[in-house]
Parts: sequence; structure tokens; C-alpha cells
Amino acid sequence: MAKTGTTMIDPHGLFDSRPTFSHVATSSGATRFVATAGQVGADENGVVPSDIDEQIQLAFKNLKRCLDATGAKVTDIVKVVYYIVNYDPNNRRHFEPLKAFLNGHRPASTLVPVPKLANPEFVFEIEAYLAIPQEPLKTVDVVVVGAGLSGLKAAYEVQRAGYSCAVVEARDRVGGKTWSVNQDLAGFVDVGAAWINDTNQSEIFALVQALGLKTVIQNTTGNIVQEDIDGTVSQFPYSTVPKKLSESDGVQSMVGIRDKTEAACQKLDIHDPVRTGAELDKLTFHDWVKSQGGGKTALASATVWTRAMLGLEPTEVSALYFLNYCKSGGGLLQMRSDQKGGGQYMRLVNGTQSISIGLAGLLKPDSILLNSPVRTVEQTAEGVYVSSARGEFRCKRLVVSVPTPLYKEITFNPPLPKDKLELSQQNNLGFTNKVIVRYATPWWRQYNLCGMLQSWTGPVAVSRDSSVDEAGQYSLTCFCVGDLGRGLSKLPQAERFKTVVDHINRTVGLGVSAPAPIAFYEHEWMHDQWAQGCPCPAAPPGTMSKYEHALRSAHGKVHFVGTETSYEWKGYMDGAIRSGARGAQEVIRALGTPKL
Amino acid sequence: MAKTGTTMIDPHGLFDSRPTFSHVATSSGATRFVATAGQVGADENGVVPSDIDEQIQLAFKNLKRCLDATGAKVTDIVKVVYYIVNYDPNNRRHFEPLKAFLNGHRPASTLVPVPKLANPEFVFEIEAYLAIPQEPLKTVDVVVVGAGLSGLKAAYEVQRAGYSCAVVEARDRVGGKTWSVNQDLAGFVDVGAAWINDTNQSEIFALVQALGLKTVIQNTTGNIVQEDIDGTVSQFPYSTVPKKLSESDGVQSMVGIRDKTEAACQKLDIHDPVRTGAELDKLTFHDWVKSQGGGKTALASATVWTRAMLGLEPTEVSALYFLNYCKSGGGLLQMRSDQKGGGQYMRLVNGTQSISIGLAGLLKPDSILLNSPVRTVEQTAEGVYVSSARGEFRCKRLVVSVPTPLYKEITFNPPLPKDKLELSQQNNLGFTNKVIVRYATPWWRQYNLCGMLQSWTGPVAVSRDSSVDEAGQYSLTCFCVGDLGRGLSKLPQAERFKTVVDHINRTVGLGVSAPAPIAFYEHEWMHDQWAQGCPCPAAPPGTMSKYEHALRSAHGKVHFVGTETSYEWKGYMDGAIRSGARGAQEVIRALGTPKL
Repeated sequence: MAKTGTTMIDPHGLFDSRPTFSHVATSSGATRFVATAGQVGADENGVVPSDIDEQIQLAFKNLKRCLDATGAKVTDIVKVVYYIVNYDPNNRRHFEPLKAFLNGHRPASTLVPVPKLANPEFVFEIEAYLAIPQEPLKTVDVVVVGAGLSGLKAAYEVQRAGYSCAVVEARDRVGGKTWSVNQDLAGFVDVGAAWINDTNQSEIFALVQALGLKTVIQNTTGNIVQEDIDGTVSQFPYSTVPKKLSESDGVQSMVGIRDKTEAACQKLDIHDPVRTGAELDKLTFHDWVKSQGGGKTALASATVWTRAMLGLEPTEVSALYFLNYCKSGGGLLQMRSDQKGGGQYMRLVNGTQSISIGLAGLLKPDSILLNSPVRTVEQTAEGVYVSSARGEFRCKRLVVSVPTPLYKEITFNPPLPKDKLELSQQNNLGFTNKVIVRYATPWWRQYNLCGMLQSWTGPVAVSRDSSVDEAGQYSLTCFCVGDLGRGLSKLPQAERFKTVVDHINRTVGLGVSAPAPIAFYEHEWMHDQWAQGCPCPAAPPGTMSKYEHALRSAHGKVHFVGTETSYEWKGYMDGAIRSGARGAQEVIRALGTPKL
Repeated sequence: MAKTGTTMIDPHGLFDSRPTFSHVATSSGATRFVATAGQVGADENGVVPSDIDEQIQLAFKNLKRCLDATGAKVTDIVKVVYYIVNYDPNNRRHFEPLKAFLNGHRPASTLVPVPKLANPEFVFEIEAYLAIPQEPLKTVDVVVVGAGLSGLKAAYEVQRAGYSCAVVEARDRVGGKTWSVNQDLAGFVDVGAAWINDTNQSEIFALVQALGLKTVIQNTTGNIVQEDIDGTVSQFPYSTVPKKLSESDGVQSMVGIRDKTEAACQKLDIHDPVRTGAELDKLTFHDWVKSQGGGKTALASATVWTRAMLGLEPTEVSALYFLNYCKSGGGLLQMRSDQKGGGQYMRLVNGTQSISIGLAGLLKPDSILLNSPVRTVEQTAEGVYVSSARGEFRCKRLVVSVPTPLYKEITFNPPLPKDKLELSQQNNLGFTNKVIVRYATPWWRQYNLCGMLQSWTGPVAVSRDSSVDEAGQYSLTCFCVGDLGRGLSKLPQAERFKTVVDHINRTVGLGVSAPAPIAFYEHEWMHDQWAQGCPCPAAPPGTMSKYEHALRSAHGKVHFVGTETSYEWKGYMDGAIRSGARGAQEVIRALGTPKL
């Protein structure tokens, strides 16, 4: 079939409109019409930068958010209109950001100088009209929403059972929160999920082996740098505890809360946490730590855990949720460990997205439709109709693999049952931004440092050596998480990176001279339309008691997967794979015996 | 099927929005969304008229170009937005041009007074949003792009052989460069192709006869008016040469170059011009004339030929191209002759477009889709997909009848072969504008003038009597061609017409009192989106040697016709018909034996 989408036309006899616009843009084939409101340089709180260029940049960023929300590519834009206050034809400040945004695409455009805009602070506004190409209606046995690990695993198992299955993905790539960046071909870094192990993460490791992916063992040789609640910095070997802390009973307090947490979580039944820990759901993890006699040091230690493991403060999560989360990974100690059997034991040479890409490659050709967020799901007598940005599907069963808080992005008809809805509304996604600082050499190792910084003051809560030596990729991954991450996020990117590096340099100790970084990588998952946080939704007190039963329950012919729905290794890739397999089993059972 | 396209709605209780807009406009059925950039009063070089009304007129003209480029009609416009600098509600200068442009159509509209526009000179900008109705996918054996004579002939022959065939035309009419205007029903004038003969233009004449169209013989009774290189005007009977010219050996020089050109062209084999004239492709016709010892008079004479025959200067065309062009019409003398057997022997009482209309009438009903430029052609295993403005076609074979330089308007996938592409990029279309000056009486005849002016100074290069006496249509067709035409084109239309009339009046001689014209007609083919010049693409030196072999070659299942691809009577209607027949034969041969 001929090209569907947006076609640019340069009419004969009109002046040359390159490089940023065309005199005419037209849609071809069946398309969906999209219009944006005029986008201005205001952030999500309505704050407008006083700097004009920053405002313009932010307007384009906001326009990109509009596109992301509808699965549109920049090349789907047919028309843009710019409104500019104090327009100066000799200083077109919007031109360079515009050119960068369009990246060669030339929609029809109009520039309108105006005396003012809706708000007296606004100096620039841009609106867009788009035509998103539509695929013809596709009828399959099963549709999976989301091409992250859980969705891909579900699709793979469904297809392996002989059923036809399509995967509809909102992003322009597969992998969900596995996202491996190989900028300038300088070696992969994981801005999302990074670690697996080969011991008790049997599902993900089996897949890694089946796909023939190369792994690398997490470096734990050398000292951890510990920053105390009063800012005192000390060092102690990995696998041990600090010799001395600023609180008089600090070390004892730290060990104490660790052991109490481990003991408490081990009492839970991951298949029925509410029955085995009902009381724990009445308070936050913060209050539970205090209830265990935990003082400043214990709380600081506990805070690093919820920040690093959930991107949340201990005040934001139910004690039951956190303890059950730990238990899902074998307990606090195992989940926090970077050594054999621990949660952070291995990484992938080509990044964890290579697992998703590999799994996608096992699907039948053309199974995945990218850039196509699902916005409505309608269950009818003829089947389940799934309307996505680039086309509609009819299926017998649907698997939804998005995190519970993102159910709100889909309109279900009939609506989700009340309990499932409440669960999705009450679960919170944490703030996790891994600022990956890349160096020419792994300089910390020569100072007998393993690359782990653990700080009770911040701004970095935890760091780890995320090098892949064989690729010449040397880096420290710095967890900017919870309130610390939220605070850093308010800074301009360059300032944020500088703050992180300053923290490293400040804490590595006297006589250590860290070289200047050669690159930075990050992804603020909280600001990502299709993540809205990372790594795993978590419940505040009271939610599990009421709604845990609704976490995995199907809604008619709609099934739900995702790492948070796994009994084991919640929030980890292993959990994602397990949940996908469980969803596929539900669907296959519902459709009858496997065809093959 | 219900109405597809744009529907205007007048909501109950809103103020009367007639005559220029509606409060609501809506598209119906499947449509293609089109947006234009804001169109301003700047010409193709970005020059902005200082006169405000002229600027507004030019903006509407540019908007019309946008519509033409996408096959849109004014009635396809759903919404317009006007931006006006120094807007005065008591003097709405855009109103009359707008009313004329919309011609009764009432899109939704918004008028936005602004302090300034993108460029400080702009005072008016208009942008449009359109919804172009889409036909459902049509599957036929053959699609023909272009409903000019060559395309129509190809379609007719394909249908006659029993194959289904659709013709897709960019313009709102059939005929291509045959275009006969019958303004105020005052008799037809041809603003495009005008002449045929009944002797050696056997193909076109047979068609004219088959269609029962009435012809009229070209008037050659009386004197030619000759304007010399120094501006001296003389007269001599048609079929003779001037008695005296300003250059001492002028007459001899004029006759000499004529005879040398005739002899040189007769040596060429029209079926293999490159083999028989390779040396001639190394220089321009201008340089060839000089190489033959041609002086000022010879060059002036040669200049009239290339201007009148190709709309080009002798410096712009390969000697081989021009000589072969002459030979295709039997030689310079025959091609230039207005008498029996000559290129300009007969005209059509109802204009030459009546041939195209007649031929279109021989096609099966609903064979032709107008206003539907083809923008993409995709050859796949399932057939050739042709995407046009108003619908998509699938066919087994495609015939493209557009001039080679316009291949750029179509995106071919796979792309055109390099040689064909180079040919299309190097061929030039000339500037030809026939200003037709209409009078109440054929006044020149009473002064023993045949109506032919031949000027070596300009601004008119050649004129001819283009009257149809039996229709009471008396006119002189004045060729504004090559550099002379390009110069005249820069004048406002009224000034251009005045300049042409002044030239006539200045040269008809003492004692001749020409009456005032009663009407003017013209069409600047160079500025026509779907012509981009007239009458026939011509090659500069070097192009034929390299790429002549690619002129008629098919590209997979795509075949190419058009008068320039004919061996005989290139640039003439007879050549167009012959090329169409050749293309049809190629297609029929490829599809198998005729079905009927």
C-alpha cells in the first residue's frame, strides 16, 4: 500500500520555504486528526521561567509531551502556528529550538507576532495539528498492551501456544523501563533496569541465556563510602558495616533495624501478605521503624532503602508493602545485595534492553505496533475492541501490562471494578533518576573503592560501579531518588549533573583526585508519559488490606500483568517475566487448550 | 453514497455570517486533511509589493498555488484564518479579493488583527485548512497519470483493447496544454496548443475527423510585418523573404542560416539523433549558428525560432536538440510553415481542447478523476499503488504522461533510475505566454496584413491571426516567449497587455489605425503548477548524448508518454497522440494480447 501519513508539498512558484516549513502539508490515507492547545513555557506547576530562551525550550518540551501522550511522531505534524510576543525578525529566538525539534520535518506553519498572550509572562506559544496514520482494523486472538518485559513475555507465550497475538506499544521502542543507551557507540549504559542474578532470578536468567546475551558481574571489590547523618564520611569494606557512626549507638542501631526488618519480612507469605501482616498495613514504614525503637541512624538507613528500592520516602509507603516487597526478592538482605544471589549481582554487556529486543525478536514478524498508545478498551459481545493511536484491534482476550497507576490513561468500557480502580489510584510511583557519570577510567578502583557511595544526607542516596570493562565503559550510577531526586529535578540539567559530581568528589576522601567525567546520562522516569515513575508502584497504608485481592484479578476478558503483580522479585525484571508468564497462562486457559 | 467533502452549517441563533464565512464547516466521509502555511504577498523570489492591495491579491494567488499543488478546490476549504496588520474595520481591504477568491464558498474563518507579521513588510497573511474527499481504493488494469492528449489517447487505446483503465488528472479539467477559453461565450480562443495540419499530422487529424470537429485554415493572405534588429519595420508577402534588412548582407544571412539549419536537421535520424548528430550535442544552438558563420541577423532569426518553438533562447538549448526537434516535424521549413503541410496550417473552431474533451468522451463513464494530482507511485509485488489527492488506485501497469521536468512532483518507490532522473532534471521547459488580443473586426486584413508580426527586438516575438471568422472571433495571438516573455511577465497584467498592443500599433505601419482591443486572454504556462513551462521540455548540450536512451524507457511497470517522447511532431498535439498510442501498445503487450 502507498504511503500513509504526512506528505509535504512545495508548490511551484512559491518562495523556498526550507528548512523549517512547507507551504503545504497533507495527510495521506486514513489518519487520525490531532490538535494541541497552544503550548507555552510553563512547567507542570504553571511556573514560567523568566529567561525567554528557557521559556521557548520549555514550550517545545511541552509540545513533545503532547505528542508523546498521543503516540505522535514529529513527522506526523501537518501544521504549526507560533505566537510570539515582542517579535523581532532580526532575532528569531525560536528558530534554533524549532529546527532542533523538527529535525528536518517541514510542516506547514504560520508565525503570528502578538502584543501579548494568555498570561502576561508568556512570550512564546506554539500549537500543532497532526495526522496520525491509521492501520486497518486487525483481528487477533490476543492483544497485549505494552512492549515491556512483562508484555513481551505474555505475547511470546501466547504465540507459542498457537494463538495470534499483537503487541501495542505507546513508545517508539520496545523495552518499557529497560532502556539501554549507546550514545556515540561508546558502550551501553542502562538508564532504566540494570541488574539480574543467576541464582534465584531463574526466569530472567533463563531468558538471558536463551538469547545468548553476555553478562558482567557487579563489582564489589573495595570500600563503600559512607556519608553519615552529620555529613561525616567514612569507608568500610563491602559486606561489612561501618566501624563507627556519629550517633553513639549508630552502628548497633543500623544493624538492629536491618535485622528487625529482615526478620519481619521473613514472616510474611508473599502469596497472602495481608493475612500474614495485616497490622503492618496500618502504618508507614517510617512509623514502623520508629515503633521498633529506631532512632536517627535507623531511620536514615531505612530511608536509603525505600529511596533506592522504590524511589519513595519511608513516610510514603505502607510497612506491609515495603516488607512484602523485600520478601518478594527473598528478603531485605538478598534484595539489597550486590553479590551472588543478590538483587544487583549481574548486568548485561549490551544493556538490559537487549533482553526486550531479543524477546521481541522471538515474536512473529509485524507483531508489534509502536508509537501507538491504547486509549480505550471496549468489551462487547463480539470481542474486546482496543483503540490505539495508530489503529484498532479486535481480540478475544486482552493483556494489560502497564503499571497500575497508569490504568487511568485507558478508558475501560465497562469501567474497571471499583476495587481495581481504587488500587490503581492509591498506588504511588516513586521518583528514580539514575544519573550515570561516565569517566575515561575506573579511577575509584585505584583508591580501593568499589564505587558504592551510601549517603544519609544526599543529594545522591546510593551509587554503584556500572562499568562494562570489556566495552571500555566506565561509569558510576548515582541514584537520585525520593525527595532527594525530586529536589535535584528542579535544577537545570547541567546544574544537576554538577551537583552529583560535587557529591562524589566531596565524599571519596582526602588524597583522591577524581578526573572530570566525559559524559552524563539520565532519564527522569517520573516525567516520562509512559512510566510516570520508577521502578514499581507502591501502596500507602490501608491500600493492600482493602484492595490487594484486586491486583491480579481479571476484568472480564482483560488480564493484568506487570512486575508489581509478581509474587517474586517485584519491581525487578525477573518479576516482570514471571507476571507475563502468569498472564499468558490465564489467557491460554481461557481460550482453551494450546493449539500447538 | 452520501456527500463527501466540506459542508457548511449555520447554527441556529448565531448572527448571519454570509457572504464570506460560516460559523461551522465540517468534512463528510473519508477526507484528506491539508494545511497550508500562512500565505503572504511575496513572490517566488520573496519580493513583496509595496502596494497593500497588490500584496493582498498576491497572498490569495499564493494560496491558490497551494490549492493547485494539492488538487484542492476552493470548496474543499474548511477553515481560513486571516492575520491583518493595521486592521481598519471601516476599510476591510481584504474583503473584495476574499469574496472573489471564495466565489460563494463560506468556510469557517477567523480574522486576527496583529501588530506585525513574520516580515516587517507583510501586512496580510492567510492560512487554510482543507478536507479533500477521498474515493475508495480502485483496482484497475491500467492507470494513466494526466488527462492531456497523450494520456487520454493511451487510456482510450487501453480501454479499446479490453482493459480497465482510469485516468487521474491534477487539473480541474481535461486537456493539459490544450485549453480553449470561451469567455462570455464570445468564441473559443486557444491559450495553449492551437495548430494542426491535415497532411503529415495524420494522427491528430484522424482524431479530429473521427470526432467530427470543425477546422479553420490559418490565414496567410497578405504581408508579414518584419521588425529588424535596429527596429526598422518593413513588410513582405507571406512565403517570401524581406527585400532588405539593416545588416548589409542581412537577407542573405537570414536565408543562409535558414537553409543551413534545414540541411543540418535533415541529416538527422529522428529514431537515433545521438548517433547521427553526436557533435551537435556539444554546443548550444546559438553557438552552432555562430559556428556556421551566422552574424547578428542570422542569430536574430534563429532566436525567433527557439523562442517561438520552445519558449527558450538559442543559448539554452543543445543544437542537436533543436535540430532534431525541427526534424521531428519534417524540418525547420515545414515546422515553421503556416501553410498546407506546415505546423500551423489549421485550427479548431471550438478550440483544440475540444479534441481532448472529445477523446475523453470516448472513454468509459467515470474513467477520469479530476483535481487529483498523483504524489506517490509505489511498485509492489501486489501491483502498482498510485496515491492521488482524491484517492488511491491499484493497477498492473501505470502510464505517466507528465512532462519529464515534472517527474519531480511524484515520489517513485523504487525511485526512478538515475539516467531517467538526470534527464528529467536537466530538461528545461520554456517560457511561452500567448497574449491573445481580441478585436471587434479583423482590421489588419483591410491593410493587406496577414496578422503575422515577426520581431527581432520584441517584446512580441511573433504574432499570428487566430480569428475564427464564423464565430465572429477576431484576434491576434502574440507570442511573449523566451527572455522577452520572462521580462513581460514581471509587469502587472494590464501593463503587459498595453505593452503588447503598443508593439502591434507601433509596427503595423503609417496610415494604419488599429482599433482598441475588446478583450485579452493569456496563460503564463511557466507559472502553472502542472505545466511549469510550455510547449515542450528541451535539453541543454550534453544531455541527449548521455540520457536520450532513457526518454521512453519503462521503469518496471511504469511507462512514460508525452509529446516530447514522440519521434514525430515533438511539442505538437500530433506528437502527443503518437506517444499515447506508443505507451498504450507497450502496456497492452505487457498485459498480454488484447482482450477484445
